[in-house]
Amino acid sequence: MTQDVRIAELADWAGEVVRVRGWLYNFRSSGQIAFLLVRDGSGLVQVVASESDVTEKEWEEIETLTQESSIILEGTVREDERSPGGYEMHLRDIEVVQRADDYPLALKEHGPEFLLDNRHLWLRSPRQVAIMRLRDRLMAELESFLRDDGFIRVDTPILTPNACEGTSTLFETEYFGEEAFLTQSGQLYSEATCAAFGEVYCFSPAFRAEKSKTRRHLIEFWMLEPEMAYYDHEDNLHLQERMMESVMARVLDACADELEELGRNLEPLERVKAPFPRITYDEALKILDEADIPIEWGEDFGAPHETEIARQFDRPVFVEKFPGECKAFYMEPDPDRPEVVLAADLLAPEGYGEIIGGSQRIDDYDLLRRKIHEFGLPEEEFSWYLDLRRYGSVPHSGFGLGIERTLAWIAGLDHVRETIPFPRLLNRLRP
Amino acid sequence: MTQDVRIAELADWAGEVVRVRGWLYNFRSSGQIAFLLVRDGSGLVQVVASESDVTEKEWEEIETLTQESSIILEGTVREDERSPGGYEMHLRDIEVVQRADDYPLALKEHGPEFLLDNRHLWLRSPRQVAIMRLRDRLMAELESFLRDDGFIRVDTPILTPNACEGTSTLFETEYFGEEAFLTQSGQLYSEATCAAFGEVYCFSPAFRAEKSKTRRHLIEFWMLEPEMAYYDHEDNLHLQERMMESVMARVLDACADELEELGRNLEPLERVKAPFPRITYDEALKILDEADIPIEWGEDFGAPHETEIARQFDRPVFVEKFPGECKAFYMEPDPDRPEVVLAADLLAPEGYGEIIGGSQRIDDYDLLRRKIHEFGLPEEEFSWYLDLRRYGSVPHSGFGLGIERTLAWIAGLDHVRETIPFPRLLNRLRP
Repeated sequence: MTQDVRIAELADWAGEVVRVRGWLYNFRSSGQIAFLLVRDGSGLVQVVASESDVTEKEWEEIETLTQESSIILEGTVREDERSPGGYEMHLRDIEVVQRADDYPLALKEHGPEFLLDNRHLWLRSPRQVAIMRLRDRLMAELESFLRDDGFIRVDTPILTPNACEGTSTLFETEYFGEEAFLTQSGQLYSEATCAAFGEVYCFSPAFRAEKSKTRRHLIEFWMLEPEMAYYDHEDNLHLQERMMESVMARVLDACADELEELGRNLEPLERVKAPFPRITYDEALKILDEADIPIEWGEDFGAPHETEIARQFDRPVFVEKFPGECKAFYMEPDPDRPEVVLAADLLAPEGYGEIIGGSQRIDDYDLLRRKIHEFGLPEEEFSWYLDLRRYGSVPHSGFGLGIERTLAWIAGLDHVRETIPFPRLLNRLRP
Repeated sequence: MTQDVRIAELADWAGEVVRVRGWLYNFRSSGQIAFLLVRDGSGLVQVVASESDVTEKEWEEIETLTQESSIILEGTVREDERSPGGYEMHLRDIEVVQRADDYPLALKEHGPEFLLDNRHLWLRSPRQVAIMRLRDRLMAELESFLRDDGFIRVDTPILTPNACEGTSTLFETEYFGEEAFLTQSGQLYSEATCAAFGEVYCFSPAFRAEKSKTRRHLIEFWMLEPEMAYYDHEDNLHLQERMMESVMARVLDACADELEELGRNLEPLERVKAPFPRITYDEALKILDEADIPIEWGEDFGAPHETEIARQFDRPVFVEKFPGECKAFYMEPDPDRPEVVLAADLLAPEGYGEIIGGSQRIDDYDLLRRKIHEFGLPEEEFSWYLDLRRYGSVPHSGFGLGIERTLAWIAGLDHVRETIPFPRLLNRLRP
């Protein structure tokens, strides 16, 4: 029986007869020769068919083949530098599994809503394949970096009884007679697990029922959240720098083809080297003043502010020491200046804005309890969280990295909707 | 400054003075010498303190130290085979970060509800640490096996408009004015992505609002779901065998210490070698007849049936070719016998039951459409799913592996509640 081979592995089979099972992506014919561009999910290959090498019936099928028809091809692998992967296949036999008629996403321009309506098919296009391969690689390299660094993955729940950062943007569901919410962050739980395992991360979907329709917002997104016992604010930022530098290098190395497919300018990505510049929130406010988009002390940044701040630097920049009033209740105050907290956002360049938000967490029981009350949260729901400050409390820190925003930046995309296989947006729950 | 070292890495620092930052797990003293058993999440180490080596104040602190107090220890690393990791530490200096008083989970027996109420602390115990390390390793090895085999991870959504396998056990939420459900499986979406990427998997939480309170059920659980284009039923089972054999070998190798901590008998795990025995549903019914727990043809197995069937074999067993009426609408009928479907469950031995469920999927448009109607599902919600059979349909197969059930088996646990950091059970949404 002829060997089934993935297109990405054809180089290992030069001179041999193999089978490729895939779909027709494009077709052109010149007289007695036809060129079939075939995809199988692992890559693209050009298949050369000569009228003289196949039966009359097969030649007829080839000449009328349509985009996205599923086909099984048998032929000889030949090196050819003009072919997408450096190899082409000379056809000996073809089986049409299913002829696809009237494929909705033929090779022409379509509007974004039409493409999103057909997301289940749109994912087959070379551009979307490249984005999803980048996504896969980014996620794998992030986890791999953390594991190599001694972290273990400890999952946190999606269904929770309490809100981590306010209740206005929560999805609610009924949990056997009581109300439950879909998580916005696994952080509070990771604070418990880092006291058990030292250095942990959780990696799961998170949900924000925000009524905003911007290029940066998804309703359902994936977040990677490391949490580290005995790390202070400085340790936290150092880890983030090391991680971003290392992961970026590995992604650039592994995904050169995908980044080329996307036409990504690699120069800004190659500059992602530690140390990253750091400015305080107060310094950021000066930049915004000078750029004529001032904000009041105590306000958080919007997208234009983040873009303007990031524009001043040639690589990702940390903005640190935010006013406590614009951040979450659990953040450790700066001992030198208690009105600001030991938190930092990492802003990506080129207008992509915040990709990481992190902080040192309050480890003092009394202070945390006071903050829970100040923020109007029900102490009872946080009793387990307060326990972490009763029984062997330690300085600890953590951060959350948004996969889709980070990917949008690396891939150089205009809109975050292309960064996740099935985006959930304000007006979109389908397919 | 003294080097901070993880307990798991002490072997690299024999003879050196290092710092360990952790928590007191246990303590005993004999006159002028005290033995502190210290954990830091990476391991346990015995720290030997001599009254003569520390200040009077430090000695007093040591002698009154309590379980789970957070401590930073400085001392010399010495090889000692009596110590948990083969090394011990001779104390030179100690800093008590926080003294923990009245730790609720002191070293004595507690009931399961009390332990679950204190899950945020219970996770610190050596047994729970071992289970979570096994979980981490199992998840990593599964993903690693699939990646090495050419699979890419393509995430599927949690929020969906339609139910994959019936609506009675779904969590519902309001999605900007329309109803949405929490996913029970990413499979239908993975069928779309396998047509784009060939071999894919999704890995995410899944939800079943089942009112059952058994040792095998979690409301929220993690599922790994590979889906493969151009795989038939046979290919599907071969992949599952290869995966289970390979992952088991790697987990046994990497987690010897954890399995020892759990007192797991390794023999049944070491027998997990392909090929796995296979029986048909009809043959399974004969086994159940002979065991005097008969079921009617067309009924699905319950836990006692699975246990009895698995008891006949020395390794995991596939039960295949189930009656279509007890399985999902999308399963491919057996061409030789259309009343059964090309589905298989993989049953773990030792009473653990089903850990994988999989099938070949229907690839014919008309048949799938008919099944959707037969199962009373709204065709409109499945139009995108039907599209996959319009545009380049191919034979394809996939399966779902439940992480928690697989882990319960590998770890040899009585109840699935210990297999996930924060279990969600019928009566439990907290902590």
